[in-house]
Order: sequence, then C-alpha cells, then structure tokens
Amino acid sequence: GHARIDHHRSLRIGLPEVIYAEGKTPGQVADIFSRMAEAGSDVLATRVSTEAVTAIQLAVPGTVHYEIARIVALRQALPLNEDEWPCIAVLCAGTSDLPIAEEAAVTAEHFGVRVLRLYDVGVAGVHRLLAVREQLVQADAVIVCAGMEGALPSVVGGLVGVPVIAVPTSVGYGASFGGVTALLGMLNSCSPNVSVVNIDNGFGAAYTATLIARAKRR
Amino acid sequence: GHARIDHHRSLRIGLPEVIYAEGKTPGQVADIFSRMAEAGSDVLATRVSTEAVTAIQLAVPGTVHYEIARIVALRQALPLNEDEWPCIAVLCAGTSDLPIAEEAAVTAEHFGVRVLRLYDVGVAGVHRLLAVREQLVQADAVIVCAGMEGALPSVVGGLVGVPVIAVPTSVGYGASFGGVTALLGMLNSCSPNVSVVNIDNGFGAAYTATLIARAKRR
Amino acid sequence: GHARIDHHRSLRIGLPEVIYAEGKTPGQVADIFSRMAEAGSDVLATRVSTEAVTAIQLAVPGTVHYEIARIVALRQALPLNEDEWPCIAVLCAGTSDLPIAEEAAVTAEHFGVRVLRLYDVGVAGVHRLLAVREQLVQADAVIVCAGMEGALPSVVGGLVGVPVIAVPTSVGYGASFGGVTALLGMLNSCSPNVSVVNIDNGFGAAYTATLIARAKRR
Amino acid sequence: GHARIDHHRSLRIGLPEVIYAEGKTPGQVADIFSRMAEAGSDVLATRVSTEAVTAIQLAVPGTVHYEIARIVALRQALPLNEDEWPCIAVLCAGTSDLPIAEEAAVTAEHFGVRVLRLYDVGVAGVHRLLAVREQLVQADAVIVCAGMEGALPSVVGGLVGVPVIAVPTSVGYGASFGGVTALLGMLNSCSPNVSVVNIDNGFGAAYTATLIARAKRR
Amino acid sequence: GHARIDHHRSLRIGLPEVIYAEGKTPGQVADIFSRMAEAGSDVLATRVSTEAVTAIQLAVPGTVHYEIARIVALRQALPLNEDEWPCIAVLCAGTSDLPIAEEAAVTAEHFGVRVLRLYDVGVAGVHRLLAVREQLVQADAVIVCAGMEGALPSVVGGLVGVPVIAVPTSVGYGASFGGVTALLGMLNSCSPNVSVVNIDNGFGAAYTATLIARAKRR
Amino acid sequence: GHARIDHHRSLRIGLPEVIYAEGKTPGQVADIFSRMAEAGSDVLATRVSTEAVTAIQLAVPGTVHYEIARIVALRQALPLNEDEWPCIAVLCAGTSDLPIAEEAAVTAEHFGVRVLRLYDVGVAGVHRLLAVREQLVQADAVIVCAGMEGALPSVVGGLVGVPVIAVPTSVGYGASFGGVTALLGMLNSCSPNVSVVNIDNGFGAAYTATLIARAKRR
Amino acid sequence: GHARIDHHRSLRIGLPEVIYAEGKTPGQVADIFSRMAEAGSDVLATRVSTEAVTAIQLAVPGTVHYEIARIVALRQALPLNEDEWPCIAVLCAGTSDLPIAEEAAVTAEHFGVRVLRLYDVGVAGVHRLLAVREQLVQADAVIVCAGMEGALPSVVGGLVGVPVIAVPTSVGYGASFGGVTALLGMLNSCSPNVSVVNIDNGFGAAYTATLIARAKRR
Amino acid sequence: GHARIDHHRSLRIGLPEVIYAEGKTPGQVADIFSRMAEAGSDVLATRVSTEAVTAIQLAVPGTVHYEIARIVALRQALPLNEDEWPCIAVLCAGTSDLPIAEEAAVTAEHFGVRVLRLYDVGVAGVHRLLAVREQLVQADAVIVCAGMEGALPSVVGGLVGVPVIAVPTSVGYGASFGGVTALLGMLNSCSPNVSVVNIDNGFGAAYTATLIARAKRR
Ligand SMILES: Nc1ncnc2c1ncn2[C@@H]1O[C@H](COP(=O)(O)O)[C@@H](O)[C@H]1O
Ligand SMILES: Nc1ncnc2c1ncn2[C@@H]1O[C@H](COP(=O)(O)O)[C@@H](O)[C@H]1O
Ligand SMILES: Nc1ncnc2c1ncn2[C@@H]1O[C@H](COP(=O)(O)O)[C@@H](O)[C@H]1O
Ligand SMILES: Nc1ncnc2c1ncn2[C@@H]1O[C@H](COP(=O)(O)O)[C@@H](O)[C@H]1O
Ligand SMILES: [Mg+2]
Ligand SMILES: [Mg+2]
Ligand SMILES: [Mg+2]
Ligand SMILES: [Mg+2]
Ligand SMILES: [Mg+2]
Ligand SMILES: [Mg+2]
Ligand SMILES: [Mg+2]
Ligand SMILES: [Mg+2]
Repeated sequence: GHARIDHHRSLRIGLPEVIYAEGKTPGQVADIFSRMAEAGSDVLATRVSTEAVTAIQLAVPGTVHYEIARIVALRQALPLNEDEWPCIAVLCAGTSDLPIAEEAAVTAEHFGVRVLRLYDVGVAGVHRLLAVREQLVQADAVIVCAGMEGALPSVVGGLVGVPVIAVPTSVGYGASFGGVTALLGMLNSCSPNVSVVNIDNGFGAAYTATLIARAKRR
Repeated sequence: GHARIDHHRSLRIGLPEVIYAEGKTPGQVADIFSRMAEAGSDVLATRVSTEAVTAIQLAVPGTVHYEIARIVALRQALPLNEDEWPCIAVLCAGTSDLPIAEEAAVTAEHFGVRVLRLYDVGVAGVHRLLAVREQLVQADAVIVCAGMEGALPSVVGGLVGVPVIAVPTSVGYGASFGGVTALLGMLNSCSPNVSVVNIDNGFGAAYTATLIARAKRR
Repeated sequence: GHARIDHHRSLRIGLPEVIYAEGKTPGQVADIFSRMAEAGSDVLATRVSTEAVTAIQLAVPGTVHYEIARIVALRQALPLNEDEWPCIAVLCAGTSDLPIAEEAAVTAEHFGVRVLRLYDVGVAGVHRLLAVREQLVQADAVIVCAGMEGALPSVVGGLVGVPVIAVPTSVGYGASFGGVTALLGMLNSCSPNVSVVNIDNGFGAAYTATLIARAKRR
Repeated sequence: GHARIDHHRSLRIGLPEVIYAEGKTPGQVADIFSRMAEAGSDVLATRVSTEAVTAIQLAVPGTVHYEIARIVALRQALPLNEDEWPCIAVLCAGTSDLPIAEEAAVTAEHFGVRVLRLYDVGVAGVHRLLAVREQLVQADAVIVCAGMEGALPSVVGGLVGVPVIAVPTSVGYGASFGGVTALLGMLNSCSPNVSVVNIDNGFGAAYTATLIARAKRR
Repeated sequence: GHARIDHHRSLRIGLPEVIYAEGKTPGQVADIFSRMAEAGSDVLATRVSTEAVTAIQLAVPGTVHYEIARIVALRQALPLNEDEWPCIAVLCAGTSDLPIAEEAAVTAEHFGVRVLRLYDVGVAGVHRLLAVREQLVQADAVIVCAGMEGALPSVVGGLVGVPVIAVPTSVGYGASFGGVTALLGMLNSCSPNVSVVNIDNGFGAAYTATLIARAKRR
Repeated sequence: GHARIDHHRSLRIGLPEVIYAEGKTPGQVADIFSRMAEAGSDVLATRVSTEAVTAIQLAVPGTVHYEIARIVALRQALPLNEDEWPCIAVLCAGTSDLPIAEEAAVTAEHFGVRVLRLYDVGVAGVHRLLAVREQLVQADAVIVCAGMEGALPSVVGGLVGVPVIAVPTSVGYGASFGGVTALLGMLNSCSPNVSVVNIDNGFGAAYTATLIARAKRR
Repeated sequence: GHARIDHHRSLRIGLPEVIYAEGKTPGQVADIFSRMAEAGSDVLATRVSTEAVTAIQLAVPGTVHYEIARIVALRQALPLNEDEWPCIAVLCAGTSDLPIAEEAAVTAEHFGVRVLRLYDVGVAGVHRLLAVREQLVQADAVIVCAGMEGALPSVVGGLVGVPVIAVPTSVGYGASFGGVTALLGMLNSCSPNVSVVNIDNGFGAAYTATLIARAKRR
Repeated sequence: GHARIDHHRSLRIGLPEVIYAEGKTPGQVADIFSRMAEAGSDVLATRVSTEAVTAIQLAVPGTVHYEIARIVALRQALPLNEDEWPCIAVLCAGTSDLPIAEEAAVTAEHFGVRVLRLYDVGVAGVHRLLAVREQLVQADAVIVCAGMEGALPSVVGGLVGVPVIAVPTSVGYGASFGGVTALLGMLNSCSPNVSVVNIDNGFGAAYTATLIARAKRR
C-alpha cells in the first residue's frame, strides 16, 4: 500500500494523526480518510483541493468543509463540556493572512480548544493591537500569523506571559521571498517566549498550541 | 543611559528580564547586573565573556558562574519546594552540542524547573535514543539541540505527547552553514509538535519550555 | 544533428546510455530512442512527458511505460537468471515521495537488480522503520528518498553496513525550498556511509546502487 | 595619485564629500583629510581605525574624535544659529546598536542638524517607545537603527508623519546573518514612509535625513 | 470583519491610508474602498486586478482607473492651487520599468505632487541622462526605478542635491533574480543620498518622496 | 558522561566508529580514544588539532600521526594479506586539495584498502588526466576531490565503470563560496555514476568507497 | 515616448543597437523595429514572442525569423566578402542548450562573423570534444554554452589560445537552480581565458565574441 | 610530487602557466617557481604571501616583487619593441580597489601589454569618467574593477567599442557580501560588451584582455 497509517498515535502522543492532502491524489486522500473514519477516531485533512473535498464527501458521510482554511473534518468522539475547554488566541497582521490563521483556528477547535480570533492587528498601527490586549491576556497560548516583515510576534511576545507560536506567511512580494523574510524575523525575535514553525504552517502551530493550552487548564 | 531596564517584566510576562551579554562591554553588563540585583530580583546573564564574568563578580557578591553554559546567575528569591517543580528534558545529538544544551538546562533550572539531561543520543545510532525513552516521556516539555542535519527533533517528536522545542546548533562544517541546515531541517519537521528557535538559542528554548512546564504542573 | 549518441558507453563504463527526456522535444526523444533500439541495446528513457510516450510508442514496438515513474523502457538483451540478481532496497519517507522512489526502483530493475520497496517509513514514527529492519539488512545497497527535513538516510545509515544513496525530493512547502533543505540535511548526515545525488534524481541513485550491488554479488 | 577629490561636490549636491576610511591605509586617510582641510571645508571621516585617528591628528590640528561613532571631524565653517537648526530623531532598539546610532547622530550634527537620541526602545517592550512619543513627533525626519528582526521602523513609521530612514545593524547571531534579516524586514515594512540604507550605514541615513530636515526648516 | 480601517491615519501621519489590493478578493477590495469613500476621504487602491477594478467601479461612482500603473483612485478633497504643488522627478532605466514608474508617478500626483517623467535613461548610454539634467535638478526629491544591475540611482545621486529614492524593479532574467540584483546594487550605492524601498514598490517610493517634497515647498 | 561510545558498531555496520575531533576538547578526544583502544579495536581520529595529537600520544602508546591528513590512528587488529586488498583511486584537481585527498587516502588505508594517489589532474589540462587513465580503470571505486568549479568528477565519471564519490573542497576564492560552487557542480554532474559528500569530507568518501571496494574483491 | 533609440551607437561603439523584446509589448517591439529599419541600419530583435514576430512582420517587410533562436533580423547593409569574415566557434554541452547556442550563433552571423557549430560535446564523454579539436583551434574566439554543472568551458579553455566566453544555461533541475550552478562553476573556472555572461545570455556572448574576432582578422 | 607543471601550455594556448600561490606552502611556491625558471620561461606568481616572497627570492635571483599587486615576476624572454605593444586600459571605481587593479595591470604588462591606469573614476561623480574618455577610447580592451554596486562597467561599456572585462572586487560592507553584489550587477549589465570574471580575479581579467589586445595589434 501507499500509506502506513499510525492508528496508535493518539495513545502514544496524545492527538490523532492528521492527513496532509497536498501531494496526494484525491483517491489516496479519500482512501486514508475513510480508513481512519472506520477506526472510529476524529479525522482532519488539511490543504484539501476541491477535487479531494468531493472525493472525501462521496466516501464518508457527515464531514464538514472549512473553505478558507482548506480543511475537511469529521467529529466522532463525544465533545467535552465546552466550558472546560482551554483557550488560545489566533492573531494575524493583515487580511491576506486569513487562510493561514483560519487553518490554525479550525485545527485547534477540532482538537477541543476555544479560539479567540484577533485579526488585522499589524504593527504599522500598533493602537489596534493595544485595543485588544484584554482579550489577548486570557489565552493559554498565542498563535501569531504574519507575512512581510513578520514583526507582530515580537510585539505580542512583550505583552503576554505565555508561549507565542509564530507562523510566517507567504504574504508579500519582492524581498519577502515567499515568507522567508517573515520567517527570519520571527527566528530573531527579541521576545524570548517566541518559537517558530514553517512558513504557512497554521496546522503545526495549532498542534503545539493545543498541547500547551490543554496542559494549562486540566 | 545606555539601557532602559524593564523592571516590571516579571509582573507583566511572568519571568524576570535576562541580560544578553554579547555585544555589550563588560562595564555595561556589570552595571545592568547590579542595578537588577539591587532591585531584589533573581538575575541571569547569558553569553558572558571571561572579562564580563570578572566585572560582574567584582560588582555583585554571591553569583554563580556556569562555565560551559557561559552563564552567570544570582538567586535571591526563596526557592520553591523542589518536589513540586515541573520537569523538562534537554537532549543533544553529540558532544559538541553541549554548550548550547547547558545554556538551556542552566536557564531552566534558574527559572525553577527540574531538568533531565539526555546527551549524545544522535540519530545515527537510534538505539541510544530508544534506550532513554522511559525518562523522556516524564517531561512536561522537551528541548532538543542538534547541529549538522538536525534530524533528532523529528524522531523525538514522534515519541512524546508534549511540545518539542528544537534548537539548531552551529555544530558542523561545509554545507552545515553555521547551523542553517539544522535550522531548515527542524522547520520542516514531519512531527507536528516541533517548534523552533534561533541557531544556538538555548536560552530562548528554555524560556518557552519553562512557560509550558509550569502550566502543566501547577 | 542535435545529438551525438555514445554507443560504446556500455563497453566503456558498464551500463548503456539512458535518455533524459526533459528539455527535449517528443520528436528528438523518439528519434534517439529508435536509433538506440536499432543498435540492439536495452533502452531507457526517464522524465518522459505524455507526448513523448506516444512518440516513442509510435516509433518503437515493444516498449513498456511505467506511469508513476515517468519511464519508458525497452528490453532486448537476454535476462539473467533472476535468482542470481543482486538486491537493493528503495525506501521513502512518505506517500508523496513515490514518483522518485519508483524512478529509482524501475531504473534498477531495468539494469538487472532485484528491488525491495519499503515505503512510507518516515522518522516521525520510527517504529515503522524498525519493523522492516530484517528486510533492509538483506540489501547490497540502499536508496533512501525523502523530502522535507530529509532525516531518514541518517537513521537508515545507522542500521546497515552497506552504502546508502540519499535522494532529496522536492516534497514539502515553505522553508523546504523545493528539496534544498532535504539536500542539505543529507549532505550533513552524521552517518558516514551516506552519499547524495541531486534533488529528485532517482535515476542517478539507481545507477550508482546498481554498480555497487553488481560488484557485491558476482 | 590614488584619489580624485571632488572639491565641488558641496556646490553641486549641497553637502561636502566625506572620507570613508575603511579599506584605506592610515596614510591615505590622513592625506585626503589634510588636502580637504586645506581647501577650507568642513571635513568628516567615518569608520576610522585607531591608527588612522593618530595619523589624522598628527597631520591636522583641531580635529574632534568621536570614539563610539568611529568618526573624526573638523569644523571650519561658521556655525548657524543653533535655534534655527532643523531637528531629527535617532532611535535604536538595543544597547548594542549604539555605535551605528552614534555614527548617524554625529554625522547629522556635523551637517548642522539637532539630534534627539532615543535609545533602547525595542519592540519587545513597546511601552518604552510609546513613552517617548511626544519627543518623536517633533522631528523633521527619523532614523531608526535595529538589528535582529528589525521590527522597530514599522512601529515607528505608524506613529509619525515624516520619512523614516531605517538602518539595519549587524547586531544578532545565528539566523540574523550579520544584519540581513533586519535588512529584509525593513524592506518589507508595512509602513509606507520607511526607506532603507545598507547594513550598519548610519552615515548614509544621516546624509539623507539631513537633506530632508533642512528642506523642512528653511 | 476582515479589516480594521485606520480612518485617523491622515490626521496622525499626514497622508490617508491606501488599499493594497494584491492578496485580497475583489469583494474585499471594493468593500474597503467604499467604506473609505463614504468617510469622505480621497481613496487610492494599488495592484488592482481587472476583476477588482470592475468591483470597485460597480460599488463607487467617479473613480479613475490608471491601467499601466494598476491603480484606481477617487478624488474628493478640494485640489490645491497647482502652482504651489511641490515637484518630484520619476526616472526609469528602460521601457520595461514603466509599470513601476507609473505606479510611483500616479501615486504622487494623487497626493498633490507635480511629477517630471524622465524615462528610458539607463546608464549604458549616459548621454541620455546628461541630456535631461536641467529638468532633474528642479525636483525636490527624485525617484529612480531600475532593474537588471540597478546602477542608475548612483549616477543620478551624484547629480542632484536632494534625496534619491531607489526602486529596484523585477525586470531582467537569469542572475537578476527577480529584482534582487538591482536591490543589492542600490543598497550599496556609493552616492550617500540614496535610500531604497522593496522591489517593485513604486507606491512606497512615492509616499516618501511626497513627504519630502511637501516639506520643501510649504 | 559527555559521550556514549558505540562499541558494537563494527558488528552492526561493518566498520568501527571513528572519532571526529573538531569541536571536542583535547581531553575529550584523548579520553574517547583510550576507551576505544582499551576495547581492543582499531582507532581513527580525524580533524585532530596539534593539542589533541599530544593529548592522544600521552594517553595511548603506538599511535601514528598523519600530518597533512590531520589524522591519528592506532592499528591493533591483525592485518589482512595485502595482496587481497581491494583497491580505490583518489584523485585531486590541484595542489591545494591535498589535505582532503590525504584524509580520504589515509582513512581508506586504515580500513584495509589499497590506494592509488593521482594528484594535480585538473580539467584545465585534460591531457594530465588522460595520461593516468590506465591506472584509473583498475580501481574498484574512485574518489575525486576538487574545489573551484568542481568539474573533475564529471570527466572522471565518463572514463570509469565504477562509482565515483565526489568530494567538494573549500579551495578557491570569491564566488567559490568556501566549496559551495564545487558542491553544486558535483550534484549536477552529467555523469550518472557520481554521488557526493559534504564539503571537505574526505573521511566520509573513504568510508563509502571502502564499503564498495570490499564488496567487489571478496 | 516609451523609448529613446540610440541611433549613433554604431558610430560610438561599433555595433548597432539591438532590441531585447522580453518585457515589451508586441506593439512596442514592432514600433522600435520599424523606426530603426527606417533609419537604414541592420536590425536585430532577440527573445521575440510569437505575437511580436507577427507584429514585426506586419510592420516591416523583408525580415527573417530564426525560430529556435527566437530572433527576428533585417539585413540592409551590403554584406562583406564572406571569405574575409572572422570566425568563431559556438559549442554546447547537450541538446537542451540549443536555443541559447543558436541565439549566439545567429547573432554573430548577423554581425558578419562565420560560425562553427560544435554541439552536444559535454564533458561526460570527453572524447566527443577531443574529436572536434581541429575545428575548434581555428576560431578567433569561442563561445561555450552549458547548463547543469557548467564544466565545459574549463576543458575547452585548456585546449585553445583565444578568449572563451562562457554562457551558463538554465538547463537542469533541482540544485541547478535555473542556471546558477553553471554560472558559479564558470566564474570559478581554472582556465584563465574564460570570462562569463549572464545565464542564457547567448546574445551578449556573441556581441563580445564578435568584437574580439573582428579585431583578430582585420 | 605535489604538482604536474604544464610546460607546453605556452605552445598550446599562447601564454605561459602562472603560479597561483594562495593555498600553497612557501616551499611549494618556491619549488614550482624555480622549476619553471630553469625551463627558461618567464614566470609569474600571484597572491604571494610575505613568506613566499622570501622563499622565491632565496631560490631564484633576478625576480621583481610588486607589493600592492602581491605579485612576484621573472622576465627571461627578450622584450618586444615597446612601440608595437598593444594597449589596454585598467579602470577602478575607488581607492580601495587598487590591489586588484594593480594585479591586473602588472599581469598584463608581464605579458607584453601597455597599460593605461585610470583610477578612482566611480559613477557617483560621473564627470571624472567623462574627463578621461579620450584616453579610454585608445585601448584595445578595457578592464574595469569595482566593488559595492559594481556599476562602473555598464557606464564604461556604453562609451567604448571594445570588449570590457569586469572584475567585481570584495570592497564594501553589509549587503555587498564580499563582492557578490558587484558580481551580480556586472552579470546583469545592460551594456552588451561586458563579460565578467570571478570576484577579485584581476589576473584572469588581464589574461583575457591580453589575448584580445594582442589579436588587435599584430
Ligand atoms: N497543513 C499541514 N502542514 C504540515 N504538516 C501537516 C499538515 N497537515 C497534516 N500534517 C502532518 O502530516 C502528517 C501526515 O503526513 P503523511 O504521512 O504524508 O500523510 C500528519 O501526521 C501531520 O502531522
Ligand atoms: N542567550 C540568549 N539568546 C537570546 N536572547 C537572550 C539570551 N539571553 C538573554 N536574552 C534576551 O535578551 C533580552 C535582553 O536584551 P538587551 O536589552 O539587549 O539586554 C532579555 O530580555 C532576554 O529575553
Ligand atoms: N572528518 C569527518 N567528517 C565527517 N564525519 C566524521 C569525520 N570523522 C569522523 N566522522 C564521523 O563522526 C562520528 C563521530 O561523531 P561524534 O559522536 O561527534 O564523535 C563517527 O562515527 C564518524 O562517522
Ligand atoms: N590570481 C589568480 N586568480 C585566479 N587564477 C589564477 C591566479 N593566478 C594564477 N591563476 C591560475 O591558476 C593556475 C595554476 O593553478 P595551480 O595548478 O593550483 O597552481 C594557473 O594556470 C593560472 O591559470
Ligand atoms: Mg490592514
Ligand atoms: Mg557521538
Ligand atoms: Mg505518512
Ligand atoms: Mg534592552
Ligand atoms: Mg532602452
Ligand atoms: Mg596545477
Ligand atoms: Mg548528450
Ligand atoms: Mg573616491
């Protein structure tokens, strides 16, 4: 077969395996999705093309499609009492960062986390960020998505006492080099509570933020 | 003056400010150190040159010098009961990664965290890592330092259910480019619980790991 | 003419010339293919576009088309007794590396080598690799295809006593830079039996592995 | 001779030629300095080594040596009435940026500009910047020096209605790449009033800021 | 909502906010455009796709579309007396730099600046530049757009006594790397009155040039 | 302890562990060397500084120091009958590549391989290479060390029917970028029997060549 | 107007101006072409798209279209006596380099130079190059086009006593980086008679080779 | 032996072999120098360290040492009548480019070429270049050395009708990247008569310019 599914991952490392759909054919994606669904677990597929969405929907009933986030999800486990959910904040610098911010937000919600969405708060008008500071400090972990110069995580990092997961986005042109400039800026953040994931990797940021937030609240 | 000390940082973001000594004169370092010591807080200076160590020791009594970690520390706060300390693991791939691993370990201990040191467990002999697995899974967060190809965090990430903070080190030669290869490898980790800090930034990894571990245990 | 075919290569360096179809027109490819076929030798064309496949099939009867591997082959020599064939293993980290792994596998088979295919054994779940260890150690040479952080060859290199040919693949996004990260990681492998070929060069890996494996068995 | 001095530059483009001492021998520097002094103009030499300082001081009486800024200057023109001087602000993010900030400040003062020094106001503690806002908005042009992620110019750019000249500094380590990360961040600033000069080029920033500020006040 | 409009920017930093349309949907662009138009201010949108042009035109009457510059503008404020307008020059090296030069020129005119267009004056035929020198020296600020080796700003910088804003363009092939070569050349300009903006950022250059020119004339 | 020695490596992967001395203190190197010597195996240390040579010699009697190759070796196993030794060729392009070529040659000899040294045969005078062709074709594997443009492996690859291990060296200046140009050239070799190791990694090339040559002769 | 044609270039620097069509609209190209044709000179346009070819042909009668070379030419001057023409050689490494080699060859012929085409003589089969050596040494200048590792100019440089103009081509994949690897290799050539032009710049190579060859023969 | 001297090079490619001393021990340099001197030919060694100068002077009488150019030369052939010498021009942009310009000038003179030195004519004061135009146009080939933005060759290329060999120098700081910026600028020159050699390679430029100039005059 083309894929060895890791059914015990949830036991071993706490969260179920997730399907990364890019570079797989729609048939492969739908096949893995239904094998995981049959095993009874919650299923999440990210970076899903339109064709793959259709293939999944034909193969598995009851899925939800999040268009901006390019995610298809299936919930089978009994939900926790929402009041007990841990909470994270997802920030983004501008309107163009929305797809990545939503990939992060939807993923975290799928894993049972409450998400505060604080969008379009880039540093060129820092009063916009200061205006949401009260909400910000309630989060158990913060995800910050930004392209261009990627300066937002440093400023946020100085305002909160929890880990900040920085996600460079490929938003920008010229010397933004598809997100490399934002990535480098974030790695050099002068705020020591900032760690970084790959360009456009909203999923990975949500995964780590979930692990952190869960620990905090339970 | 040359520096605006952020005395309220501890209140605002949970951990006291730390002196990054590289690029400052010994006099500047000692001056900032004693101003912070006088304010009654714990003080930590990283990347301290031999000259700066002497300058601090002349200015402030009671400091401790960690040679491999290039750190000088002063503890003034009453220690917590050690049994209640949260716990992290610090791993490194080879003997040459020790200075960075120790920077991380000493920093975390300064912040009141118990540290499991698991050194020289690089992936070219993966049985060495599997041999320490039992200790590894007790940690509330894991720091992994590696140079060269930087592959260790991915393997570790697949073995634990907590966040892994990856620290690329500048160990290697030729196409290791002073840590860039390890950095890129870690950013592309196929384990979703891995996030990354700057090359040789053991301090930053310890800072984030401390925030995570604290949340877990209290 | 546009090409000077090297008909004596097989005598000089042991394996027949192979057509690299990318950057040639379908007409040029089919023309070179039939001139080599007429000379009586086995013929292999790699990176063949759909148009070039058709052009070859119209010009030369009896060819085989391997779709995933993007290869067209013609066998005219008498096959060896398969039992005496040397044996290599081809590994890949994830489902998306399949086209390159298959380019390597089909090429090696064309040159008279038996291939063990061990796919989707990436390091984020290292138990999957340990599970195929028995098969792995039977190979006279090992090819390892991986994208993203390219960590697999280092782990494999620590498990076998034969040369490992590492093939970085262009699988990944963001800071994977079209395979550059995997390439750099493999060049810095801490396993000393690893050597590296160009990104996505499954063909070259198979060529070298064939030369090694043949030497071993005869 | 080794140098063609451009004595008419002041007439042609408004400010006198300045000696860039790096890469010239102390003898060459002192020779050019005294030829310009003899011509009666104000003289400025930047990036002056200790040896070149001595060579100038032996050759020309009445010079001033600015140590942190690595500048030697000679004033021969009658000073303007200081009250009528235009005004710029020079900001820097951290203590280590001081040499570049001072290169800018001393250069501007040499050209007859009043300088507000606002140092150690990096974005990880944004309240420090907001605290100096009143002074900041009095400037006719603003120079911002920062290393590491280089985020400060974007935040400053959003607070003032005059041009911001950003100077990336080579302060940092690892993925700061000797100032490249700060440079790229500044080029991608989301504040449209930011333009950028070369890494550590405090002199060039002062030159442009002087041209702007002069226009404003006269 | 997807965007937080900064209505007070004009008061705070002197020029109204401008819509950067790339990476936003036509609907988002038109929505922001009409919200700003309703607020009574002048509106400018850059990098506007054909679809977004239509969307704006349907939503807001009275706009002007500048095709080469990819700009849509709306003027609602009473114009100044044109005789009192400050003046800038916009130069470009070759015919292919026109879209960026026009982005700069149209933006500056929108902000109330008179523009001298001096096009196709690249350095390989330096007599062409010397031929327009008389016009050049009338400008209060100069914008220079050039691709390939980006040498024009250095030559221009030596001819004028005002700030030169250099705009690298993505014109070129091979080792021009999409404008990077021009960018690097401009950052290393031996003329000290040159500062630089991002590749193809005609808008940013016009913004800064406007701030400079306004100061000069009023 | 600072190091976990892999005493079973020889059983597991055929050749004993080798000490990479760079980045270790002389004390650490001598300590590891004597622990391995006591275990009765052959010992090899590469990249040994003068201080570390002395430290080893004080700790372990009977070692041999190869100065150009920067290697210290200890032979304890009974040698094979030399006539049965497999044979490799080590080539280099110019005189400056000698240290790397010798690192490869000495390492291979330590592992029981006969070495043909063919030095200063760079491609700018291709008759020099053709003059040694007869010796070249006797080798079971070929190592080619070259700096600058790194063209030699391609030409050699077209002359032999065995694997060519290419070692880029850091010889060159300007755009040779410390061996990167040679590395890239070798990775793009148009000879399909070429695989590549890290810049200056003579040791790794010898390791792989040894594994290949042994297979051939036994 | 969009272009300032340099009609006196031929007088000033010996060869007429040439139209680089990439990045210009078909209308602009045809317009410049006919203005130059009217002035009576020979006209050459390179990198001409299909649309631009049509536009030129509609505007100017008597042009010739070289398809592989992507060139349109018009000859109006009286040809020299062909026997007196100087002679250059154009070499290329493989079939895929043909478009660039032809751009060079057609350009040189347009300028009145005789061209020896020696194609598909890459270094992996160096006997192919040695086989054409007699023709090669007749040339007054040599152009060598090669992609991938770009090794051919070094070998050719060692065989001839005239300048070698190396043209890196964008042929290759993976770590060939669109011609950068070939470019770097050529810049580091160990043959001192090699100079280099931009990636894929067959035109520039022909221009320089023409100037050299002309000097030689007249 | 460590070196295979190519005594027939002069016959084969017109100019004698030259010793590149960097990376060779003083003993090796002196040894090669005396072996070539004994063979009766003119000898030139470039990049000679102080130690190597002494070693040569001890071994061979009658040599000349050019200090700025870092060259040692021995003339044994009968000089040509100087009036018949061909002529080149060597230009440089600034005082710091002198060592490279002199390497070129001395090398060319050694090969029997008359050299016009035109130094410190950088583009920031283009009148300085125009002032030497009369001398410039007498040369049969032109070498242009420049660091920083490397713009000078383009301007020169537009003024002369002979080949221009551009030499990027490592002069500059920050984003000049040790000559890379100048190199890239020169490769992208909009003057078609410009070809480029490696950073700081004054020797190679002189070699090619000599071949061109000789052809012109004889
Ligand atoms: N958007 C994403 N970005 C990065 N990694 C992802 C993403 N979505 C899923 N993954 C990871 O990719 C793994 C699956 O890889 P594969 O075996 O190729 O399907 C999952 O276990 C996730 O850890
Ligand atoms: N080794 C280190 N690496 C990175 N950052 C550090 C290190 N040590 C201290 N820091 C950070 O640097 C900040 C102080 O910077 P400064 O104002 O330049 O002294 C502290 O608040 C820490 O967050
Ligand atoms: N010169 C060398 N270059 C690269 N790797 C080496 C070299 N010498 C030894 N090694 C490898 O480095 C490993 C030891 O690394 P360490 O555990 O850091 O001592 C050995 O097992 C060898 O595979
Ligand atoms: N300064 C220089 N830069 C580049 N190449 C040089 C230089 N000086 C000499 N060479 C070349 O280097 C070759 C000698 O290289 P090698 O065999 O290492 O001595 C000579 O044939 C010259 O072509
Ligand atoms: Mg916004
Ligand atoms: Mg080890
Ligand atoms: Mg998988
Ligand atoms: Mg500070
Ligand atoms: Mg033009
Ligand atoms: Mg040699
Ligand atoms: Mg071929
Ligand atoms: Mg000068």
